[in-house]
Amino acid sequence: MNIRSQVIAIAKHAKRAANSLARLSSDVKNRVLQGMAGKIVREMDSLIEENAKDVDAAKRAGLSAAMIDRLTLKKSTIEDMAQGLREVAALPDPVGKVTSMWRRPNGLLVGRMRIPLGVIGIIYESRPNVTVDAAALCLKSGNATILRGGSEAINSNLAIVRILQAALRECAVSEEAIQLIPTTDRSAVREMLQLEEYIDLIIPRGGEDLIRAVVSESKIPVIKHYKGVCHVFVDASAERDMAVNICMNAKTQRPGVCNAMETLLVHRDIAGQFLPFVAHKLQDAGVILKGCERTKAILPHIENAEESDWYEEYLDLILSVRVVNDIGEAIAHIEQYGSLHTESIITTDYRNAQKFLNEVNSSTVLVNASTRFSDGFQLGLGAEIGISTTKLHAFGPMGLEELTTTKFIIYGNGQVRT
Amino acid sequence: MNIRSQVIAIAKHAKRAANSLARLSSDVKNRVLQGMAGKIVREMDSLIEENAKDVDAAKRAGLSAAMIDRLTLKKSTIEDMAQGLREVAALPDPVGKVTSMWRRPNGLLVGRMRIPLGVIGIIYESRPNVTVDAAALCLKSGNATILRGGSEAINSNLAIVRILQAALRECAVSEEAIQLIPTTDRSAVREMLQLEEYIDLIIPRGGEDLIRAVVSESKIPVIKHYKGVCHVFVDASAERDMAVNICMNAKTQRPGVCNAMETLLVHRDIAGQFLPFVAHKLQDAGVILKGCERTKAILPHIENAEESDWYEEYLDLILSVRVVNDIGEAIAHIEQYGSLHTESIITTDYRNAQKFLNEVNSSTVLVNASTRFSDGFQLGLGAEIGISTTKLHAFGPMGLEELTTTKFIIYGNGQVRT
Repeated sequence: MNIRSQVIAIAKHAKRAANSLARLSSDVKNRVLQGMAGKIVREMDSLIEENAKDVDAAKRAGLSAAMIDRLTLKKSTIEDMAQGLREVAALPDPVGKVTSMWRRPNGLLVGRMRIPLGVIGIIYESRPNVTVDAAALCLKSGNATILRGGSEAINSNLAIVRILQAALRECAVSEEAIQLIPTTDRSAVREMLQLEEYIDLIIPRGGEDLIRAVVSESKIPVIKHYKGVCHVFVDASAERDMAVNICMNAKTQRPGVCNAMETLLVHRDIAGQFLPFVAHKLQDAGVILKGCERTKAILPHIENAEESDWYEEYLDLILSVRVVNDIGEAIAHIEQYGSLHTESIITTDYRNAQKFLNEVNSSTVLVNASTRFSDGFQLGLGAEIGISTTKLHAFGPMGLEELTTTKFIIYGNGQVRT
Repeated sequence: MNIRSQVIAIAKHAKRAANSLARLSSDVKNRVLQGMAGKIVREMDSLIEENAKDVDAAKRAGLSAAMIDRLTLKKSTIEDMAQGLREVAALPDPVGKVTSMWRRPNGLLVGRMRIPLGVIGIIYESRPNVTVDAAALCLKSGNATILRGGSEAINSNLAIVRILQAALRECAVSEEAIQLIPTTDRSAVREMLQLEEYIDLIIPRGGEDLIRAVVSESKIPVIKHYKGVCHVFVDASAERDMAVNICMNAKTQRPGVCNAMETLLVHRDIAGQFLPFVAHKLQDAGVILKGCERTKAILPHIENAEESDWYEEYLDLILSVRVVNDIGEAIAHIEQYGSLHTESIITTDYRNAQKFLNEVNSSTVLVNASTRFSDGFQLGLGAEIGISTTKLHAFGPMGLEELTTTKFIIYGNGQVRT
């Protein structure tokens, strides 16, 4: 069978499975998830064995230590995966919830009921735990999943999906509910992205290049975020210690993630006092600062920020700093250079807090809190399949509800249209 | 300026306008809409004059009488357009509504606030009233619009948009909020569909070929429906007069629209009595019937339904008829041949009503009511920009809310992530 027919067969099976998954009771879905958790722990040794093949190949291919670290499955990683499955089992099932219902003048009772999206394709890089996470969230929300992991994790992913499918079978659920594209051939992705007849949504997770390639080739709707250039604006009225604390957390607590601060905007009225103070702390934590002209007038020894720096997602201990005249200039900067991800204002001024919340149209906008809270778990969604900076369907962190849509349900008693 | 730069300039202007539109008060938006309504009536004569150029060209080009009818602006059409504008002004503004808010254990107050999508591109065929409708709904929901109408209506559309822009200017709103691609060159659409940096959503309205071409070329998310193959299932327990009444309404009240019935499914236990009765009425109204074998055993003189007929959106006085063994077979038929648009069951059996509502995952599912109610106005959305059979973002009839998304707003008092 060539790759094209192989991918089409997988997609057809997924669609067939989706129809029955949509009707599965929460009980059965939860039993499957618990079964998966048990199995993954019981088969830990064989999983680690398969993973070792990938790790060896990665070492021979000269992958970076950081990448090999992300690829490696340890006892603790596998226990975390199992725990993640149990947590998804414990979440409320969004399917079938009637979110609102109203009566029309002609007596029709009209409501909206949550239903699964259908078939979700996940295209991702390296980390094998995404395989478990994504499959679990899609299953709980009643969707069939087609997984396409990175080629460097192919043995690990095959082993994981074998375990997940065994758990499906044990509960008499079709193993077609969770499938992995079993080849590392790149043309398989291209074929997959054409199958709008069978696949309802593509979620790419990985670097900006991967995501841009997927968007440009896909006929299927894609939910994506290219990058997170997150801003903190320290207003003139900010409480200094709170501002420093939030800046330190947003920049240094985990600099390699999309909700870390990349640009700091400071109101000119406090820049003279605030910048030396916060710069000292940031530099102590190893952060390299790049400043605008006015910042450099206060911190003469830091690097110069080029125009391109304002667009940069460093994902590293580097921070761009700009002094602005007022909140209007801060908002205009975010509009021009931002990525619609996450922005925070530190202020004690009521009007500025409300202005920032109302006028900044990024997916998450905060007052007096760290950008690091832009995360499905932290916001109370209970889970996270990804963060969307596409304004369509879901904008911001996506939990189980964001893997569903609603249909209109209508109760009548013979109404016809006149 | 070549077409590419022209389209890019329009898109950039639209994005700039979108930022200020997002902050416009409901009052100003409503004043603009009222101003448009007044102006369109006052400038009726010049509008009819420009429209006459299109109508003359269409006649010379030999377009069908039906197409010329849809293209022609009469005094009454223009008055209806003005009335439509006033009705949109009267609708509640979705922007800024906080749809829910909850407190996290760490004291963060997390909510979701409705915001406009940004820039919406509408690609449509012939009818010039779509120009007014679409622009009004996008404006009310705080979005900038880029309109690309059919080439046969270019003079009418240019004249309409000139009037709408004048009304924007009178209220000091940027005329970039509503723009028309001023050329009929087809490459303009191709260019437009590449501009994901500036345009947030494409809504194509027209025939299936137009929509398929847009989906296949677009890098921008598209909300679409290809076709409406709507089903009515008459269950064994159906009340006969209600079933006949609904079938007649769903098929004949307006056969050329997407929510008209295209396939009738009848439970075998009542087929012998029901089919002759309903066939007589349908045939009296000019409907041509095409039946499966079992239908033809009861109605021997009707045409044979081929396999391809079950997929067909006739948009005409033609109806496919199939006898099914039970509700399960009816649902399976809809799953296999349906278009996810609208389906109705006629029944007096409680369990079958609930089973149909729960298991049929089309965008609108009805019990004991005509498929013709699948319409934004009829469902109480107040307006309709289109109907989506894409499960992403919006599924089914789309009103003003469906032209918005939500952002997370978060009130903190210094929280950082640990």
